[in-house]
Amino acid sequence: MTADQSQVTAELARFVAHTTYDDLPPEVVRETKRSLLNWMGVAIGAAWHESVDILLKLSSEVGGPGQVGVYGRRERVDALDAALINGMSSHIFDFDDTHLRTVIHPSAPIAPAVLSLAEWRGGSAKDIITAFAVGVEACLRIGNSVYPDHYNVGWHITGTTGVFGSAIASSKMLGHDEQSIRYAIGLAAAQPTGIREMFGTMTKPFHPGKAAMDGLRSALIAGWGFNSSEQGIEAKRGFANVLSTKFDPTEITGTLGQEWELLKNAYKPYPCGVVIHPVIDAALGLREKGVTPGNVESITAYVHPLVQELTGKRTPQTGLEGKFSVFHCVGAAIFEGKVGEHEFGDDYVKLEQVIQVRDKTEIAVTEGMREDECRIEAKLTDGSTVEHYVEYASGSIENPLTDEQLDAKFNDLVIPVMGEDHARDVIRIMRNLENERDVTNLVKAATM
Amino acid sequence: MTADQSQVTAELARFVAHTTYDDLPPEVVRETKRSLLNWMGVAIGAAWHESVDILLKLSSEVGGPGQVGVYGRRERVDALDAALINGMSSHIFDFDDTHLRTVIHPSAPIAPAVLSLAEWRGGSAKDIITAFAVGVEACLRIGNSVYPDHYNVGWHITGTTGVFGSAIASSKMLGHDEQSIRYAIGLAAAQPTGIREMFGTMTKPFHPGKAAMDGLRSALIAGWGFNSSEQGIEAKRGFANVLSTKFDPTEITGTLGQEWELLKNAYKPYPCGVVIHPVIDAALGLREKGVTPGNVESITAYVHPLVQELTGKRTPQTGLEGKFSVFHCVGAAIFEGKVGEHEFGDDYVKLEQVIQVRDKTEIAVTEGMREDECRIEAKLTDGSTVEHYVEYASGSIENPLTDEQLDAKFNDLVIPVMGEDHARDVIRIMRNLENERDVTNLVKAATM
Repeated sequence: MTADQSQVTAELARFVAHTTYDDLPPEVVRETKRSLLNWMGVAIGAAWHESVDILLKLSSEVGGPGQVGVYGRRERVDALDAALINGMSSHIFDFDDTHLRTVIHPSAPIAPAVLSLAEWRGGSAKDIITAFAVGVEACLRIGNSVYPDHYNVGWHITGTTGVFGSAIASSKMLGHDEQSIRYAIGLAAAQPTGIREMFGTMTKPFHPGKAAMDGLRSALIAGWGFNSSEQGIEAKRGFANVLSTKFDPTEITGTLGQEWELLKNAYKPYPCGVVIHPVIDAALGLREKGVTPGNVESITAYVHPLVQELTGKRTPQTGLEGKFSVFHCVGAAIFEGKVGEHEFGDDYVKLEQVIQVRDKTEIAVTEGMREDECRIEAKLTDGSTVEHYVEYASGSIENPLTDEQLDAKFNDLVIPVMGEDHARDVIRIMRNLENERDVTNLVKAATM
Repeated sequence: MTADQSQVTAELARFVAHTTYDDLPPEVVRETKRSLLNWMGVAIGAAWHESVDILLKLSSEVGGPGQVGVYGRRERVDALDAALINGMSSHIFDFDDTHLRTVIHPSAPIAPAVLSLAEWRGGSAKDIITAFAVGVEACLRIGNSVYPDHYNVGWHITGTTGVFGSAIASSKMLGHDEQSIRYAIGLAAAQPTGIREMFGTMTKPFHPGKAAMDGLRSALIAGWGFNSSEQGIEAKRGFANVLSTKFDPTEITGTLGQEWELLKNAYKPYPCGVVIHPVIDAALGLREKGVTPGNVESITAYVHPLVQELTGKRTPQTGLEGKFSVFHCVGAAIFEGKVGEHEFGDDYVKLEQVIQVRDKTEIAVTEGMREDECRIEAKLTDGSTVEHYVEYASGSIENPLTDEQLDAKFNDLVIPVMGEDHARDVIRIMRNLENERDVTNLVKAATM
């Protein structure tokens, strides 16, 4: 199928305007609900971060009425600030969902915009699911059309494509016609947020929050007649040509509405870089086979070269450094039986039992080992050997997180912040989200 | 002087933090006041545009407290929305100031941020002048460092460099230290707004308004500890390298504080493309020499090729088309003796006496004629000939607008909106701005 390049924005707008809840395949509905649950967990988990406090101060000084709740907290802020704050919060741990091909984290810029509108202006949970699904689909497809050049030159693709996702999902929530959607896309095209130089600072998670806010504002004003280019994506001086040396419009319009890129959204099981994930899976496998800090003599993990390159820190001194230490991660997995935010605490990386295992762990860079694969071997004090093999890391496309793993991740993030009751309620509501008439119950469960 | 490329952001922040009002050369103070007067005129002139109404609706629905006035109107909005709305308004007519080398319109993204802070948080007029001057200086120098590649690829450079100007000017108003300024610059680097595809739509003037708002927000949160890269401009994946194939850091740091790029800011005398300006000057010269619609037989203007290419519309049907018709402009100049917004009204382009002159006008593309030069010749009904020669168009660097011309432009824009009293008061206050203790008088004069 070849695309008429001059019709990309128009075709996308048509798809968005005319897709209904009933058009969504069941697996798209299911994955949308899983994405939203995962997203809510990471948003609540980081809700008390210092950077959130700063944006709440901003909102208290110049913000509007308390229209929407900040998840995991008591404050209410205006709908735009809520999109900004909840969107930023959800990316602080870098533990949100990932479209593996483009490394876009689609929920962070899109979910908070949709939920802001639902709480402020109303809308059923079916509206939310539909708006989120078409917004994510557009965002990921626009990402595919300019990846990898756009990312390689230094754009933080989550922000730059997320603003389209937010504008489009918000337009869908607002019931806009095709022309208003084209205007919203044009406004989004002119407002890319995010460059990779900001990685490692508060500005990185600010990117998707800002994209959520800007997209929501774009949709609102486009609906009131604020006009823009109707070829914002594909025009000679539009988004794709200005921000990328590669542009393949068929990535956007090909099989649109028939195949869903959203189904390739993946969830991290562990709050650290994906290259360590197969190693953590493998170490947890050893533990299930009886390996403990008390009986282990040495551990060798056979890994892809990137594991050494990106996560080879031998003696991490802080929790953050622990995220870049495959050795610490193996130590935590063997000692604790899980690897969550708790196991990346500043005190935790200094636990004696963890350090003991860490220092007995070696990695062997192994030719032919894929990035999502790992073999691990433990020698025990009794002279025996235990092995475990991970063909595909959990959270990969081939081995997605189960609902139970998602729940466990959610609980691990949310219970320390809000307690068990809130965590249980959010999971229960999300599991049957399509039956909620509005977001009243969800907001009650997700705020304090 | 060679720049240490890795210190560009740091050097700029040092300059901003330590420059005081007393460091500003008198001509910089004078040009700042002229820029602010010109800016206020174009902001008030377009204050009742439909796009302003849409943003006011947005502010009434999600905006914060009425902290700052919308110039030319009665509404008061929060400080961020005021930066957005007043910034957009000032670029609607495309009649604001221009840094001719880069085509940056520096006041639109910077003045509204500074004035918002002055009204909301306080600050003397000397603070305003200092903040505006360092903000514009930084904006123009950053523009120079990436021009022309950055513009040629399709960025609307007024927005993309304006957000730096706003962040820096706002930081200066807030009295930030060097580190906070570096953070604000980093935040600005991650939030470029504006692509050229949007020209001709409401989204074009939205760009500098958005830049003003984003820069102001960046400065506020940076001051509260929101961190960012401290090399936002020059890092490998920072602003310059991600958004431009050319980057010359010496354009930013060379002669900083000794030479002022701000002095190269120019003001358009007529609300249309600059290539027509020397022709209008020339036609007005004919009129002063006695040429009228009643006595003219034919007019020939000898012009640069761009005049034909960009403004060759023979029979404009709307006011907007009139802006792209050199023939209409000559007709209006001869008939009316001035060319302002009034002469680009939809009815005005259909005035019989204007059309008569228009249809008797020819242009002759002339080898060697510069863009800002024009010779014109009129044959009269009595057989005689009148000539006029314009060496440099008014509003060029060589022939800048006089204070009287600026006042006339201001009055032409403001009196139809607010009446003579307001116009006179703003001019009087701006002329001696440095003596104002705060912005109370200015705001009173500039709002209704």
